[in-house]
Amino acid sequence: MGFPAGIVELVDILSQMGVEEAVICPGSRNAPLMLALVRHPKIHCYSISDERSAGFFGLGLVLKSQKPVILCCTSGSAGLNFAPAVVEAFFQELPLLVFTADRPAEWIGQWDGQTIYQKELYGKHVKKFIDFPTDTLQEADYYIDLGVEACLKSSAEPKGPVHINIPISEPFYPSQGEQLPLSCLPILSTSELIKLETGAHKKTTELSSYFDVKKAQSILITVGQRPSNAQENAYFTRLALMGIPIIGDATANLPKECHVSHDLILANEDLWPALKPDLHIHFGKSFVSKRIKQFLRREKPTKSFLIHPNPIGRPDPFQSLTDVIPMDTLQFLKEFKVTDQQINPWKSLSQKVVNIQAEYFNQTNFTELTIYNDIIQKIENLNGAEVHIANSLAIRYVNWTSAYFAHTEVFSNRGTSGIDGCLSTAVGASQNTSKIVISILGDVAFQYDKNALWNQYVPNNLRIIVFNNAGGGIFRNLEGSKDLPELAQFMETQQNFTAKNTCLDAGVHYYSARSLEEWNELSVNFFEKGQQPALVEIFTNSIDNAHVLKKYMDLFRA
Amino acid sequence: MGFPAGIVELVDILSQMGVEEAVICPGSRNAPLMLALVRHPKIHCYSISDERSAGFFGLGLVLKSQKPVILCCTSGSAGLNFAPAVVEAFFQELPLLVFTADRPAEWIGQWDGQTIYQKELYGKHVKKFIDFPTDTLQEADYYIDLGVEACLKSSAEPKGPVHINIPISEPFYPSQGEQLPLSCLPILSTSELIKLETGAHKKTTELSSYFDVKKAQSILITVGQRPSNAQENAYFTRLALMGIPIIGDATANLPKECHVSHDLILANEDLWPALKPDLHIHFGKSFVSKRIKQFLRREKPTKSFLIHPNPIGRPDPFQSLTDVIPMDTLQFLKEFKVTDQQINPWKSLSQKVVNIQAEYFNQTNFTELTIYNDIIQKIENLNGAEVHIANSLAIRYVNWTSAYFAHTEVFSNRGTSGIDGCLSTAVGASQNTSKIVISILGDVAFQYDKNALWNQYVPNNLRIIVFNNAGGGIFRNLEGSKDLPELAQFMETQQNFTAKNTCLDAGVHYYSARSLEEWNELSVNFFEKGQQPALVEIFTNSIDNAHVLKKYMDLFRA
Repeated sequence: MGFPAGIVELVDILSQMGVEEAVICPGSRNAPLMLALVRHPKIHCYSISDERSAGFFGLGLVLKSQKPVILCCTSGSAGLNFAPAVVEAFFQELPLLVFTADRPAEWIGQWDGQTIYQKELYGKHVKKFIDFPTDTLQEADYYIDLGVEACLKSSAEPKGPVHINIPISEPFYPSQGEQLPLSCLPILSTSELIKLETGAHKKTTELSSYFDVKKAQSILITVGQRPSNAQENAYFTRLALMGIPIIGDATANLPKECHVSHDLILANEDLWPALKPDLHIHFGKSFVSKRIKQFLRREKPTKSFLIHPNPIGRPDPFQSLTDVIPMDTLQFLKEFKVTDQQINPWKSLSQKVVNIQAEYFNQTNFTELTIYNDIIQKIENLNGAEVHIANSLAIRYVNWTSAYFAHTEVFSNRGTSGIDGCLSTAVGASQNTSKIVISILGDVAFQYDKNALWNQYVPNNLRIIVFNNAGGGIFRNLEGSKDLPELAQFMETQQNFTAKNTCLDAGVHYYSARSLEEWNELSVNFFEKGQQPALVEIFTNSIDNAHVLKKYMDLFRA
Repeated sequence: MGFPAGIVELVDILSQMGVEEAVICPGSRNAPLMLALVRHPKIHCYSISDERSAGFFGLGLVLKSQKPVILCCTSGSAGLNFAPAVVEAFFQELPLLVFTADRPAEWIGQWDGQTIYQKELYGKHVKKFIDFPTDTLQEADYYIDLGVEACLKSSAEPKGPVHINIPISEPFYPSQGEQLPLSCLPILSTSELIKLETGAHKKTTELSSYFDVKKAQSILITVGQRPSNAQENAYFTRLALMGIPIIGDATANLPKECHVSHDLILANEDLWPALKPDLHIHFGKSFVSKRIKQFLRREKPTKSFLIHPNPIGRPDPFQSLTDVIPMDTLQFLKEFKVTDQQINPWKSLSQKVVNIQAEYFNQTNFTELTIYNDIIQKIENLNGAEVHIANSLAIRYVNWTSAYFAHTEVFSNRGTSGIDGCLSTAVGASQNTSKIVISILGDVAFQYDKNALWNQYVPNNLRIIVFNNAGGGIFRNLEGSKDLPELAQFMETQQNFTAKNTCLDAGVHYYSARSLEEWNELSVNFFEKGQQPALVEIFTNSIDNAHVLKKYMDLFRA
């Protein structure tokens, strides 16, 4: 068939660099890529039809393996449907290798089918764009260099997606019985390969050159989104026990010793001046909480450090940054020597919040706030589950409840904070684990991404919790939008789909709860390991939810 | 609230230019845009949650109105989900005005939520990118110029999308009772406005300067995708009756006098030399049929003209182009003087095809080919329906059957030929008509785009026909792919979802047919106007379909 030159070699070198998984979306032009991937003995391949969902599924695989995953699609608009996941990966700093099959250059703009301008398709949202030559076979070194570069670029800090656009001419299929060409690459020894691990930038800056820590009267550590990391958490625990406030949203995956309901404390703006730190140190990426950002923008610290090996630009969500310290979190924590803090104003305030919450959650009602609290507690009791929290209201609720995640790894697509692939990401991340993986999302996020369940890979360890308030509940909670006459039709976009019918198609066991009794009864066994994936849809009233949440927030504003 | 400057004026001038419809996707940052659109008395607004589907819905509106339609979304990945529709509009040359709300520039790259690089988001796939200033109110003339430019750019040949990126600061909502600012624009008189209609490039080239038509021994007219046009069709009819072969796929919307089963005629390659034209004239855009392209690439005409007022680049799908004639179709046809052709070899060959088909379709079986033939006949009998044919197998079948569309307007997303929005486009295009609108698609295209039915606008005049062969049936018909061991898992991507459950959610009446008897029984009333949208899912066997289609094609290869 004149198999496109270099494709087998490309897959081979990526495999040798440690790439182990590929998500393939069916198409004709990418068939040679599919064959090169599927027939490679060390690449595990998934086939998913909806590219938007497939992209997020691949992102979910990366979240777990922390290795680059290949996405592969045909030419034309297929690649556009990868874009939401590619851009999420870029801002969440996750390695993806995106293969898009393309027409040979001379056919672009000739009104041939499935032909768009694929060069630089993702603009600034990839770390590198590679135009792959398939017309003549190159020397082995060429492919080795290219594969090494693609892998290193995607795996070096800041990690991110690399786009490889691959022109492919007809015929797309081998003749019957025809074998794929053998890779011209040698099998390289470990020492010959520049291993992925060495790709991370690790600058060895002396921490002491930035500041004299003894001068700091009050230190505040903030932790944005970051993956769970036991080594780092041991350091954070130690610092918290020394009296240093370490605050983060659920997405920060901090240990329980660090737990501070910062968003509720900061609900009372009168407290802000007293909480102003003189040294602020930020780890990880972004916060969900808007208040922590507003607080630090107003009460600017004397010194404010961002700890990141190599950030894109100079991200300054707190508008107070004085230094970027080019280290990774662990390296910094190892070098960070500090003495016990005498005063930690967050501690007593945190206790006040806990007291209010204890009294509040003593009552029972069937609204989102209460059920979230119960769910978090039940998931925590599993002692080692993983949760994927959708954007919009879901990710906010988990920061407000009394129960909180400390033994549960928390994931959320906070790179772009879109609702477009929350469930697909969870399905991808549930592939290679026997742990219970739980996706928590609203009805709009579920319906938006319901094609997450349209594949053969929905595993038995997946549990989905859909909060159905018949529309975009967040808009009923926002000051301003809640009173607009356009609320129902153009903000909430009231919708009456349920998850039930999608579950019927997908072979997912469906439960529903419309009362506290129903929820209490079914939640006893819902999280147990079973023979089938399961979904529970919790129907609550949007008006009640908003009312309860507002009254709850008022408790902390006093 | 300090409503963002210029938004009301932007909407006002677009309305004065003739824009009448907007599709709004809910979000917080685009709320001021939503309010400016919804509260404008002359803009009809739709609210759709899934931006991918919303984009195609808007494209469907454009197909019918032929006027620019506004798409409006919030910041972040929302705009990425518009991309498949935007790019389809670019290549199908349809006017769209894409509003994306954005953060103010100083917040880009600051790890704030829903923030991506939105400038030039669609790359080369828009006719113009406009960075809209919302910080200070400009003079009225500024907005008049901007609105006129956006409308003219999108409506001038080649028509296409224009992207307006609009930074918006908080607060996003007016205070209770607060009114939107009034537009500072005067109400312009018709004569003051540069009307959209004058925007089209109409070059007045003398046709005689290109060639002496009397020299042409044999003329072949090909017509790619184009909207139905009665005036043009009158000319085409006259030319066909004069003996000039005029060939086009179903997407060419040609009158019945022009009907030639060119793809079946050209199945026999021995005939190609005798069919070689010396003058070839092409109208409209692309062909579905690969054979017509291969034929003209091999049997190159002496002269080959593309008739297009202002094409992007120099599209040459037949690789035989000698001249681009910058006229619109009607203008060319008016000036095109030709005498009767003595010999039309297509005519007798066409008759042979008709004879073979007559015999073939005399038999009955329950495979896609036969059912397509029956469906087309039934739709033609409606005498004025509109059909939207999905990509992949659907758009191919309608070019192969004995029955053909001549009284039915045919639409298909052949700009990028993606399956990603076929149904959403049909739902959009069915809004402002009482005609029966029929969407014909395969199970994969249906499931991919099932969010087309996740909105409040699925009308009673919509009929959906899903051919369910449990996967991507096209791959079983392609030489090469059909024998691959990877076929089932990685090409067809066998899937067992049906449309039934989606219909339950969407309030669409569901029918299914698994035999000829069932189909015959239900098809009697299926196309009648009724009180509910309806869908029929036709279950056929993928292996039988492929077998039958191959045998059918062999009849014409002899």
